[in-house]
Amino acid sequence: MPILNKDMQVCISLAGRPSNIGTRFHNYLYDELGLNFVYKAFTTDDLEGAVRGIRALGIRGCSVSMPFKEAIIPLVDNLEPSAVAIESVNTVVNEDGLLTASNTDYEAVARLLAEHEVDTAQRVLVRGSGGMAKAVVAAFRGAGFDELTVLARNAEAGPALAERYGYEWVAEDPEPGFDVIVNVTPLGMRGDAEDVMAFDEAFIERATTVFDVVAFPSETPLVRAARATETAVITGAEVIALQAARQFERYTGVLLTPEQVARASEFSRAE
Amino acid sequence: MPILNKDMQVCISLAGRPSNIGTRFHNYLYDELGLNFVYKAFTTDDLEGAVRGIRALGIRGCSVSMPFKEAIIPLVDNLEPSAVAIESVNTVVNEDGLLTASNTDYEAVARLLAEHEVDTAQRVLVRGSGGMAKAVVAAFRGAGFDELTVLARNAEAGPALAERYGYEWVAEDPEPGFDVIVNVTPLGMRGDAEDVMAFDEAFIERATTVFDVVAFPSETPLVRAARATETAVITGAEVIALQAARQFERYTGVLLTPEQVARASEFSRAE
Repeated sequence: MPILNKDMQVCISLAGRPSNIGTRFHNYLYDELGLNFVYKAFTTDDLEGAVRGIRALGIRGCSVSMPFKEAIIPLVDNLEPSAVAIESVNTVVNEDGLLTASNTDYEAVARLLAEHEVDTAQRVLVRGSGGMAKAVVAAFRGAGFDELTVLARNAEAGPALAERYGYEWVAEDPEPGFDVIVNVTPLGMRGDAEDVMAFDEAFIERATTVFDVVAFPSETPLVRAARATETAVITGAEVIALQAARQFERYTGVLLTPEQVARASEFSRAE
Repeated sequence: MPILNKDMQVCISLAGRPSNIGTRFHNYLYDELGLNFVYKAFTTDDLEGAVRGIRALGIRGCSVSMPFKEAIIPLVDNLEPSAVAIESVNTVVNEDGLLTASNTDYEAVARLLAEHEVDTAQRVLVRGSGGMAKAVVAAFRGAGFDELTVLARNAEAGPALAERYGYEWVAEDPEPGFDVIVNVTPLGMRGDAEDVMAFDEAFIERATTVFDVVAFPSETPLVRAARATETAVITGAEVIALQAARQFERYTGVLLTPEQVARASEFSRAE
């Protein structure tokens, strides 16, 4: 048990259904780095009151999950470009009462595209049209990709997402032949759809990069199939670790090494 | 370092100048008893916002110190008799969004008078007229003491306190001869006045019980002098431990043994 002290800075999360992942990631690193911080997950049925409390109690940072990512926008003071780009917030930093919001999901996807040196001339297929799909599509747009197709059954969200970023939408599987295929649906996620592969083999065979945003498990059927063909792979586990690392850096001002991120990520997942 | 988890219940304190005492007392016992709780001290310049945050985040309990003990009254839903008796709150419990306020300083003094079997027919002299003096004087009234004199230089607070509880006020030292003498001033407290004895030897010699509400150090000059004469002694260390124990019991629903209170109290003071 920690000897908490009065001078500790407090970071929290707000989520409809809190998980332990962020709590474990951040507290692990506070401990490893000897930072006088503590992190605790909360839920709320009064988002405005929670934000008022963040200000009144001087809470240093707040990670924001569903269903608060858009609703929190009018309650903060500043939006960074990452939050503006997708009208969605997952990170709030409190600087002496001034609340600045950003979106580290967007930042994490953008950084992974750069780190993996995905060629912006390649043709991209993104399956999904929810909030995370928006972060992914916006990051491809921000990185300079011109050819991207949004594949989504949802005949409202699908075309709206594609149109917003100047891309195409299709409701049904197009012909295989995309260089980059991205899954941003729950297909392959632990639970009912864990055995479902988000793209057929034909898509995987033709792709040079497979990106699966599903984070649990870290190896989905899609990732497993892609690795078997030696296609380049970007995983949801990388996204979730990198976005948490960016939050950590904003809250504490401490930059993390890749090794520290990997250790904290492993710890946060090993529950 | 603790592995904090999402299901932990959170208790906090609000104080103009937070100390580590409550943080250490409560967290020590959470650990010893294996309770899934965590306790953190805060300050605020927006008490209303802080209380809104307590409700919105579902914070289980809040210990209240100067200068918020009276200002918080209109912000809670229910007042227990202990808070009504002295129009002062040091404890707020959140039961599914309903905030109930009490004053465990009052309760602690009342219980100590009972435990030490102080005879209600005895004559009492109380030095002081601040917030804690109100808790002490009200507890004597609640216990059934009829003869009590408030000794206070302050010509507003002194008579107001005495009158409110139906007692006498004097501005200057009366003749010695009181059975119970009580110090509720900073005389003898760590700092500028630590060598000052709150009552002359003549008062100590005539008293059967000496009660010093100063908690740091646990042995003030007054307590030391009283112990040398084998007078019965009640200390501020007992008050602070007992009031914290009552808070703990309200927050967690777990009753503490005297040994547990003593260990937590010792830990909380050993900084």
